[in-house]
Amino acid sequence: MSGTASKVGTLLVQGPHRKGIVTSVSQVLNGHGATILDSNHYSDAPAKLFFQRLQFDVSTLATDRVTLEKEFREICENAGMSWRVWYADRAKRVAILTSKQDHCLYDLLIRHRNRELACDISMVISNHPDAGPIARHFNVPFHHLPVTTDTKARQEAAAAELIDRAGVDLIVLARYMQILSPAFVTRYPMRIINIHHSFLPAFVGGNAYRQAHEKGVKMIGATSHYVTAELDQGPIIEQSTVRCAHRDSVEDLTRKGRDLEKQVLAQAVRWHVEDRVLVYSGKTVVFD
Amino acid sequence: MSGTASKVGTLLVQGPHRKGIVTSVSQVLNGHGATILDSNHYSDAPAKLFFQRLQFDVSTLATDRVTLEKEFREICENAGMSWRVWYADRAKRVAILTSKQDHCLYDLLIRHRNRELACDISMVISNHPDAGPIARHFNVPFHHLPVTTDTKARQEAAAAELIDRAGVDLIVLARYMQILSPAFVTRYPMRIINIHHSFLPAFVGGNAYRQAHEKGVKMIGATSHYVTAELDQGPIIEQSTVRCAHRDSVEDLTRKGRDLEKQVLAQAVRWHVEDRVLVYSGKTVVFD
Amino acid sequence: MSGTASKVGTLLVQGPHRKGIVTSVSQVLNGHGATILDSNHYSDAPAKLFFQRLQFDVSTLATDRVTLEKEFREICENAGMSWRVWYADRAKRVAILTSKQDHCLYDLLIRHRNRELACDISMVISNHPDAGPIARHFNVPFHHLPVTTDTKARQEAAAAELIDRAGVDLIVLARYMQILSPAFVTRYPMRIINIHHSFLPAFVGGNAYRQAHEKGVKMIGATSHYVTAELDQGPIIEQSTVRCAHRDSVEDLTRKGRDLEKQVLAQAVRWHVEDRVLVYSGKTVVFD
Amino acid sequence: MSGTASKVGTLLVQGPHRKGIVTSVSQVLNGHGATILDSNHYSDAPAKLFFQRLQFDVSTLATDRVTLEKEFREICENAGMSWRVWYADRAKRVAILTSKQDHCLYDLLIRHRNRELACDISMVISNHPDAGPIARHFNVPFHHLPVTTDTKARQEAAAAELIDRAGVDLIVLARYMQILSPAFVTRYPMRIINIHHSFLPAFVGGNAYRQAHEKGVKMIGATSHYVTAELDQGPIIEQSTVRCAHRDSVEDLTRKGRDLEKQVLAQAVRWHVEDRVLVYSGKTVVFD
Repeated sequence: MSGTASKVGTLLVQGPHRKGIVTSVSQVLNGHGATILDSNHYSDAPAKLFFQRLQFDVSTLATDRVTLEKEFREICENAGMSWRVWYADRAKRVAILTSKQDHCLYDLLIRHRNRELACDISMVISNHPDAGPIARHFNVPFHHLPVTTDTKARQEAAAAELIDRAGVDLIVLARYMQILSPAFVTRYPMRIINIHHSFLPAFVGGNAYRQAHEKGVKMIGATSHYVTAELDQGPIIEQSTVRCAHRDSVEDLTRKGRDLEKQVLAQAVRWHVEDRVLVYSGKTVVFD
Repeated sequence: MSGTASKVGTLLVQGPHRKGIVTSVSQVLNGHGATILDSNHYSDAPAKLFFQRLQFDVSTLATDRVTLEKEFREICENAGMSWRVWYADRAKRVAILTSKQDHCLYDLLIRHRNRELACDISMVISNHPDAGPIARHFNVPFHHLPVTTDTKARQEAAAAELIDRAGVDLIVLARYMQILSPAFVTRYPMRIINIHHSFLPAFVGGNAYRQAHEKGVKMIGATSHYVTAELDQGPIIEQSTVRCAHRDSVEDLTRKGRDLEKQVLAQAVRWHVEDRVLVYSGKTVVFD
Repeated sequence: MSGTASKVGTLLVQGPHRKGIVTSVSQVLNGHGATILDSNHYSDAPAKLFFQRLQFDVSTLATDRVTLEKEFREICENAGMSWRVWYADRAKRVAILTSKQDHCLYDLLIRHRNRELACDISMVISNHPDAGPIARHFNVPFHHLPVTTDTKARQEAAAAELIDRAGVDLIVLARYMQILSPAFVTRYPMRIINIHHSFLPAFVGGNAYRQAHEKGVKMIGATSHYVTAELDQGPIIEQSTVRCAHRDSVEDLTRKGRDLEKQVLAQAVRWHVEDRVLVYSGKTVVFD
Repeated sequence: MSGTASKVGTLLVQGPHRKGIVTSVSQVLNGHGATILDSNHYSDAPAKLFFQRLQFDVSTLATDRVTLEKEFREICENAGMSWRVWYADRAKRVAILTSKQDHCLYDLLIRHRNRELACDISMVISNHPDAGPIARHFNVPFHHLPVTTDTKARQEAAAAELIDRAGVDLIVLARYMQILSPAFVTRYPMRIINIHHSFLPAFVGGNAYRQAHEKGVKMIGATSHYVTAELDQGPIIEQSTVRCAHRDSVEDLTRKGRDLEKQVLAQAVRWHVEDRVLVYSGKTVVFD
């Protein structure tokens, strides 16, 4: 990410492997005068699937974005592939949902301010008031939306309205301790990222550090994943682990785990907002 | 482990926390003229349990081992604690059981020859003949005990006879691809160590790398544990993980996993033969 | 660290190895009715040195702290050993010195608020005003002490006065970009902890990430150490590393390194305030 | 690496960044009917340099290799870029040089037999006879070439003759404890890989574990690199680290380090024989 980052376009392509697709795409860019800056492919040979991430310099474009995209559409539709393009001069908008634990919230806000995350943080939403002063410290709008079993549908509707009105691209669950309804989840497919405090698929659900302690594992982990209707089962974006020992109490595991949670969530957000993640078969391809 | 290793005694004590137990044990050793070389405690405060590993210099013993142990027994029995003592001049005897995959077998034999493992390797037993030349290369007796569903009980009996006749202290399953019968397992409680090719409790059973690949995890792991009657559920001794990515095929995961398996199994064997592992509540205390 | 943490006393002993010292110390504690909670030894055999960290329950003390310490003094002085004792009900006082980069500052303040660090943070001192709002957000007194080459001696004197008046036990350099004078350093022996942004002894001095980038290393590191008169040469307390690759620019290394710096510095501070670190021969013993 | 690995061609290109080079290369392959299987680019933007690794399916080639390479040559020479191509049906030939320590030798031979390394191992050369039985166990030709200060030139000449006569592509120094002469080194540029037992640039030269122990580092490392005329200064291919502690003696560090050395050397050899490594400015680009 240099000073010319704002002139960068990113094209993501995925679908059935077709001979010549690499050449066609690069010819289109060449024809429009757009210099290719970076390109990565991945082929899942057994599944006969192809994935590509390609970055190009928009500033050298001889035509315009609409014309360029029209050609991408033609090539990809003919090849039965899905595609999307993003320009760095339009930063993605992120909404953070959180509860009482604030380590991931602080972490994302600090990284954002240190320019580690190429996005705008549009708002912080919490079911508790505690996050308010934190959001204000970083000059981010804060919305307190308390929730009970009875008011859950209404609270989610209020959150969705805030999110949609602001044109939010990505929802980040930064230790948000509420299970989102299927209706909410399916409204934002592959646009909600959660951090789970275990090395999934081990220790699904709540109290993962307690589960780990009782099992006597020698490492704990954290997992960031897209949220799907099935709890803790969405496509995994990033995982990390750290050693622990018999001496570690549940509190020690929780403390060690916080460091993992922060890094693993921030990494997933960073990759997502930089258009590095593609999803298929319940898994992710990450062009890091 | 220096040149005086052979003069070292190791005392392991575990049981309900009793005031004064640390002092009593050190007084006994002092009284017998045995210098304390190293001492580690661990208290599981919520469970009110106490664990100690203590190393002492046998060469300065003013009395003898029998008298010393008699006093240990009295103190520990009075306190309701279990204990065991081991002297480095009596190396533990290890039997390795293996099948076709030879990376863990080689690894243990090479480490043993490089003096990383303070034990004797008494024999290699395999249900396949392939390990024979490897055992011979390292001058270790080899026993080929083929097995079918029908002959399993007899094969295990033959193995047990070889093991018992040689006074084997520890059985190491170095990618032994047979599930041992409950009868065999219960005969050697906390004396059989297995290596499982996943980060337990994730991916129990066979084909763990395939399971990991299908789930799309971003790290794979390996786990060494004592074998109990319940498959892959025994007390965990050591675990390790390594990063993987969408590019990694099942074969790549298998290759990366082999490095983990070797290290995690060897670490567990090393800790066991150095009397660093205590078991309680299905978990291990490792004084590393 | 449980709810009884405030009743814990910690004794650190180091010096020439003496037979019977373990027993003597535990007898003293026993005699005063203080239950031993945890105990760790380390012997540097070639150097004939002995180190012990022992935690005991002060609440069961039959006598008082002054009497207890008098006996410790006698035993240790007779054995030619140095010792110190600390009680958890007197939290250590910490001063943080920082400059413009705020990631370590935020990290320490957040961890402190999350009760990860068993100390008081008495003040933040900076040669830049930027840290002011951060300190205020966490309700920590802030002192802006600008510095130029000409005013350095006076600025350090002002800092020392603030530090001494508040009875500060530990000075933490959280990316403080000034080299402290030998006079200042020697005033606080083994009481100043710095974070260096490399895997020492590689890449001493400034621009460590640039040095690493130019060398083409495949991992970068961070090192926390006590500050001594010789730049970046003090006893190392903790180190950590993370993978990097040819794709990583100096900015990427800096970003990755920030995560290391935060963790490695916080770990050192945590160990220090919990009296887990002893120093000898330019190295540390860490009872973790 | 699947069953079709032998039909794979790998093209490596590096040089000044030229607009359209990606398109040109893919057009050539397309024109010859060769399906692109995988492609990776890297641009060093500040240096205006471009690197590409491209794998294609040779079995679908409509023309022949000579014609294809002729076009590669034209395109690359016009663009001022260097290039090389390799076909998987011609396995690279590797010579291993070793001394007394055998852990890296065993490791490479076992990995080779387990098909982790896509090369032939043509010979083992050692200045000690000990490696002979190991080489024989794996059916690899062994040459004992003892060396003294006086015979060094002759010994190197004998080694070079064996190496050249066998058409060796890569020389691996698997703990070869002799410093090769500049004459020998310059004869095989970027074709000699060494394993150094430290995290370079820390602890250059001999006794690296002792140096690390004296410094009191909290992690040790290993580094594989191409050998150049300047000792331990060649382009780094891979590094790894592992935690250590004050309890670790030099022997413990040596033991822990062996695991690093094995993995780091094997990784470098694997990447080299799969044509994943490019060198520029004393650094490597690794397309892993």
